[in-house]
Amino acid sequence: MSQYPDSPLCSRLGASVPIFGFSHSLDVVVAISRAGGIGVWGATRNTPAEIESGLARLATETAGAPFAVDLVLPKDMPARQDRSAIEEAIPTEHRAFVDGLRRKYQVPDDGLPGVRSRFVRSEEMATDQLHAVLDSEVPLVAMGVGTPPAAVTAAKERGKRIISLVGAPKHAQRAIDAGADILVAQGYDAGAHTGEIGTFSLVPQIVELAGEIPVIAAGGVATGRHILAAFALGAQAVWMGTAWLFTTEHQIDPIIAAKLVRAGSGDTVRSRADSGKTLRQIKSAWTEEWSAAAAPTPLGMPYQDILVGDLLGSVERNRIEPLMKSEAGQSVGYFSGQTTVPELMADLATQTSTATGALRNRLGHND
Amino acid sequence: MSQYPDSPLCSRLGASVPIFGFSHSLDVVVAISRAGGIGVWGATRNTPAEIESGLARLATETAGAPFAVDLVLPKDMPARQDRSAIEEAIPTEHRAFVDGLRRKYQVPDDGLPGVRSRFVRSEEMATDQLHAVLDSEVPLVAMGVGTPPAAVTAAKERGKRIISLVGAPKHAQRAIDAGADILVAQGYDAGAHTGEIGTFSLVPQIVELAGEIPVIAAGGVATGRHILAAFALGAQAVWMGTAWLFTTEHQIDPIIAAKLVRAGSGDTVRSRADSGKTLRQIKSAWTEEWSAAAAPTPLGMPYQDILVGDLLGSVERNRIEPLMKSEAGQSVGYFSGQTTVPELMADLATQTSTATGALRNRLGHND
Repeated sequence: MSQYPDSPLCSRLGASVPIFGFSHSLDVVVAISRAGGIGVWGATRNTPAEIESGLARLATETAGAPFAVDLVLPKDMPARQDRSAIEEAIPTEHRAFVDGLRRKYQVPDDGLPGVRSRFVRSEEMATDQLHAVLDSEVPLVAMGVGTPPAAVTAAKERGKRIISLVGAPKHAQRAIDAGADILVAQGYDAGAHTGEIGTFSLVPQIVELAGEIPVIAAGGVATGRHILAAFALGAQAVWMGTAWLFTTEHQIDPIIAAKLVRAGSGDTVRSRADSGKTLRQIKSAWTEEWSAAAAPTPLGMPYQDILVGDLLGSVERNRIEPLMKSEAGQSVGYFSGQTTVPELMADLATQTSTATGALRNRLGHND
Repeated sequence: MSQYPDSPLCSRLGASVPIFGFSHSLDVVVAISRAGGIGVWGATRNTPAEIESGLARLATETAGAPFAVDLVLPKDMPARQDRSAIEEAIPTEHRAFVDGLRRKYQVPDDGLPGVRSRFVRSEEMATDQLHAVLDSEVPLVAMGVGTPPAAVTAAKERGKRIISLVGAPKHAQRAIDAGADILVAQGYDAGAHTGEIGTFSLVPQIVELAGEIPVIAAGGVATGRHILAAFALGAQAVWMGTAWLFTTEHQIDPIIAAKLVRAGSGDTVRSRADSGKTLRQIKSAWTEEWSAAAAPTPLGMPYQDILVGDLLGSVERNRIEPLMKSEAGQSVGYFSGQTTVPELMADLATQTSTATGALRNRLGHND
């Protein structure tokens, strides 16, 4: 007997736990799927070759359990992989500001790229990434920003189901029109790329608009109470990202892990400084510097990626403490120490069962 | 048989419906309490004499049903009612900006104050307002911003129960330490003065921290699904404000009513332009002007009140369309036409019952 509310969506997908777990770590993704949920690999910063090998590994190690891959496919990216064209378009003021940060925080210029600058986000790269996904055995393809109709059609022709992350009713309508099979209503509370509408305010209106299309709730999910509430709001599953940063499978840098443990829900901020799009992360000297009155306005994607990518890569490699940080949602305040994926999954099951029992008691008088 | 989950809090207070309804309109407050909920009168912009007469009217017209009054009691206000001292401290740049808006939008300088400038928010005024409350028969006193321990003690000595609105765990702890009887966990999604933490992320951590102290969920509540979810999150009631702006009892200006009907959840914004504290409202030329690059940073409370109060008063009196606006939360997207308080209360009961039935079906497999 499941400790979770019944989810026709997850039953159909072959998952016994209605939790989609997003991570950039393949180990975390495997562990989530093995524990009954649906691991979602965030692969948007990976090369096509890495995506091919990563998905092959997931297909093997998940041992028949469902899993997913997440790509970010925004509109209006440059056509080709041409870093020098991007570099040329970066204003002097922005370059000077980043150079100033490099000097101020003594970040070595080691000549290496970071995760955001190892390639240019472009139509060309998106196409190659998507092909690697289509050629793989992954059954579920999540689109984190934007749901291009052509990509949806191509993936569905290969038997993939499409999950679209949306932050507003108009995005949901576009995703439905494009043919998305599942919507993730991702609220302002969420980590990484988020919109303006709070999770609580967002979910029921996406459920209403989606009709028969199942909806997953994302943004702020941390406990069994949240999981039960997501079902009350009309969702059929939850989507969690921040929680896995606290698992040992993730192998996060101890400096960042310590910052995550200290952070409360009020210690995250949405900033455009990383990618050009609003990205929720824990507050740091990085976000403070970019929100100072003298700071330039961040550039659009992919210009901001290239502007800051090498610097941020060196910050990570050389462990420049004040600028080290992590994407995180407002659920960060609920976690205060390291755990493992199976332990966390077990805790969530118990918590959901407890929350359900408490709610049943409140509903008792209606029987 | 109630269509709502059981609420020990509301039973204790004598309410049959677990909805606290906040409004500046006495007619709305009366109608909510008469329909089984708990009407909360937002009286912070009212004089002590108005509070005295308003609460006397509520005591009579609610006919034994519970009701509440809400005051805003922020720290660090000036000691005395001295508008000229406030005026003297306003920078020339700010004055020039507001004068520029007056000219641009042709707002008559009719020499009258607005709701924000009819008196200066001060310790003196707060004391007089509080005395009017203490001398009244109102059983419940809500504190919208700040929970001063002396005010709590004085109110409790007069047999009042104290409701404190909090937007973060640290505020909740302060309110508990001050002796609050009930907490409202008010999330980012809410209208008017709101913090950074989304309602979904906020509520369970306040419930956890509050222990035996009952918690009410606020911010984004619009439908029966939200009410059920609030209970799933651990709350014992919901607090709604925006919804009542759509009731005929409120007698809102038709220009503002039309703007509210058009607004989606993404069409609200938090701005410090009205009071100096972040106030969620529908987007308008007013919020756009103050967020322009050339706009000055809003002053603190009560300086901003006095800086803009007369102008906003004239905007309302003379119906200057582009600058007319309303406080509203992200629930605004759920309402698309006028209703009455009893109709809305009946709808919410039906919706909650429907949402409960749907959730029961999902929980069926756990029996």
